[in-house]
Amino acid sequence: MTSYHGGCSVRSLDKEAIENLAVGAAILGTGGGGDPYLGKLTAIQALEEGYEINIVDIKDVPNDALVIPSAGMGSPTVIVEKLPRGTEIINAFKALSEYLGMEVYATMPIEAGGLNSTFPLAVGAKMGVPIVDADGMGRAFPELQMTTFHINGVTVTPMALADERDNIVLLKTCDNYWAEWIARDITVRFGGTAWIALYPMTGKELKKAAIPGTLGLAERLGRAIRDAKERRENPIEAVLEASNGFELFKGKIIDVERKTTGGFARGEIRIEGIEEYKGQSLVVHFQNENLVAIKDGKVIASVPDLITLLDLETAVPITTESVKYGYRCFVIGMPCSEMWRSEKGLEVAGPKYFGYDVEYKPIEKIVGEFE
Amino acid sequence: MTSYHGGCSVRSLDKEAIENLAVGAAILGTGGGGDPYLGKLTAIQALEEGYEINIVDIKDVPNDALVIPSAGMGSPTVIVEKLPRGTEIINAFKALSEYLGMEVYATMPIEAGGLNSTFPLAVGAKMGVPIVDADGMGRAFPELQMTTFHINGVTVTPMALADERDNIVLLKTCDNYWAEWIARDITVRFGGTAWIALYPMTGKELKKAAIPGTLGLAERLGRAIRDAKERRENPIEAVLEASNGFELFKGKIIDVERKTTGGFARGEIRIEGIEEYKGQSLVVHFQNENLVAIKDGKVIASVPDLITLLDLETAVPITTESVKYGYRCFVIGMPCSEMWRSEKGLEVAGPKYFGYDVEYKPIEKIVGEFE
Repeated sequence: MTSYHGGCSVRSLDKEAIENLAVGAAILGTGGGGDPYLGKLTAIQALEEGYEINIVDIKDVPNDALVIPSAGMGSPTVIVEKLPRGTEIINAFKALSEYLGMEVYATMPIEAGGLNSTFPLAVGAKMGVPIVDADGMGRAFPELQMTTFHINGVTVTPMALADERDNIVLLKTCDNYWAEWIARDITVRFGGTAWIALYPMTGKELKKAAIPGTLGLAERLGRAIRDAKERRENPIEAVLEASNGFELFKGKIIDVERKTTGGFARGEIRIEGIEEYKGQSLVVHFQNENLVAIKDGKVIASVPDLITLLDLETAVPITTESVKYGYRCFVIGMPCSEMWRSEKGLEVAGPKYFGYDVEYKPIEKIVGEFE
Repeated sequence: MTSYHGGCSVRSLDKEAIENLAVGAAILGTGGGGDPYLGKLTAIQALEEGYEINIVDIKDVPNDALVIPSAGMGSPTVIVEKLPRGTEIINAFKALSEYLGMEVYATMPIEAGGLNSTFPLAVGAKMGVPIVDADGMGRAFPELQMTTFHINGVTVTPMALADERDNIVLLKTCDNYWAEWIARDITVRFGGTAWIALYPMTGKELKKAAIPGTLGLAERLGRAIRDAKERRENPIEAVLEASNGFELFKGKIIDVERKTTGGFARGEIRIEGIEEYKGQSLVVHFQNENLVAIKDGKVIASVPDLITLLDLETAVPITTESVKYGYRCFVIGMPCSEMWRSEKGLEVAGPKYFGYDVEYKPIEKIVGEFE
């Protein structure tokens, strides 16, 4: 359905579209980005309460309009146990738009991932503003400055953080790393979760700094899986086609090693090949998200490109929190946004930033070398 | 010198007045409240740069005027090593007064103590506003909610915190304990010190909630010591007279036990009596400030009343950070503001709040029992 908001056309989402979007976003979340179930629930609940979820294309956002992305910050584990009341993020938006002295035209996600792709849907619905079909990562990343907004010079602050007790913090920091540093701590003081409004920007800045079409892509990925299942076709093929992705491996998880250090869930997933991969082995290193895939000692994909594990039968994405011994999975790789492949992009979120002594190579080049 | 600010009379401080005030404030600081030297320096420097330090009486503040106290928050040890640039607190004031949409009429201290009594003098001078002769403790305390503002229903937030990198945080919390909890952590993230503007209030609220005359009292205490020394009289007598205080003990420090737990400098000072106190012993328990004095097993003074150690020869106050084996000292006790003796006052800052199983008794009653 197409309607109009402030003179530009919007597309409204129904329940099935939200469900598709949640599955697709979790694929783009590369193992991180939180539980897709909660974000989906809050969005569907907003629909059932009679709110409309309207998506606006990035090119239709007026250049002088104020867009403020919304997100949950903190540990996904805590978020699941401490559901938002729904008023927290509204408080954050109110404080930030009062501080800026401007009305909010639209919200949007900062990342693609289980929770943070779908959460802004309910936020926009309840505030009566559309959600821009775009994000700032094209995938999930763990820190606030790991966005294409950041690499294009947009500042995280002024930002607002709110909790369920009506505590509100407005931050204005000297740079985006300081925003991450201080906001992370406030999140801990809030009890593990904060609901945040951040990276306020004009339509003009948005068009330069955001990755367009992320919500649409997530929805198409989810729909591709659904359609393939209905037609009893291979859903993995459908995902690869819809995402320009590559099959990297097929196997059975034989070991998961986890440690929580420096506030991250770090670890390694060891996968033993099956079928055409028999005799080979793959190790996936993760820090919240899957970051590096090493096949028989050779790096075959690395951050900022996307590495996702999908259940072999259902193509449901497996998060780094839920991954377990015995799962049988496909490992797929997808190219990241070109913005991440710039010098600045790799400095902010390349393998070296995460502590891996790996030179980044675009996934399509690595795959080409193998073929 | 008397002049006028916004229609009300102000009294300007000269260098000698500031020096007296710093010494007197350290006496009221009961061992805590930071190093008097730094606050004094910043105030005297402001004078030397040509700014005026104008003190206004609490009764002369218009009822609808906005007063915002100013302070340094964090570890005094860090503050001494990381002097403020001077612009930090101005940033905090600017952010807070913009947020409130009101101009600041005056600033003031939140506590009496070495640093935080004198720091607002330079702040007021540089902002071109007077400093109200009042504070929110009548002594020093370690936490933001331990003020007569709090016990009279004034909220800590909205408050602003700033650092030397131009990071600014605006806080609006659900209660004053949450303000302390979150602000304390931001202070740590800032590197140990934050410069804060807090407890914004109207002249009307101020008159109900503040302790009047603290700056004047500090100045008189400092002057009493200076005058007594010039006349070669006993400065301790002069202090007791100017403060309605009591001599509690005279002795030599034979042991200082320190431990840093829960973010506080906790410990005990053991003093062996000399002269008329020979054969007796006194133990002073402290947590940043001196909190409980026990003579031969009997509590002779406790928080919220003031307990201060003064050098036996010079009457210079000894802080809990500088106290050492071998010092010879007077221990004096002074009655706190009546506001602290209310049920709410004792709940907020009585001996039980600090973890001591001691029933508070006003110092003048305890002294009466001994005589």
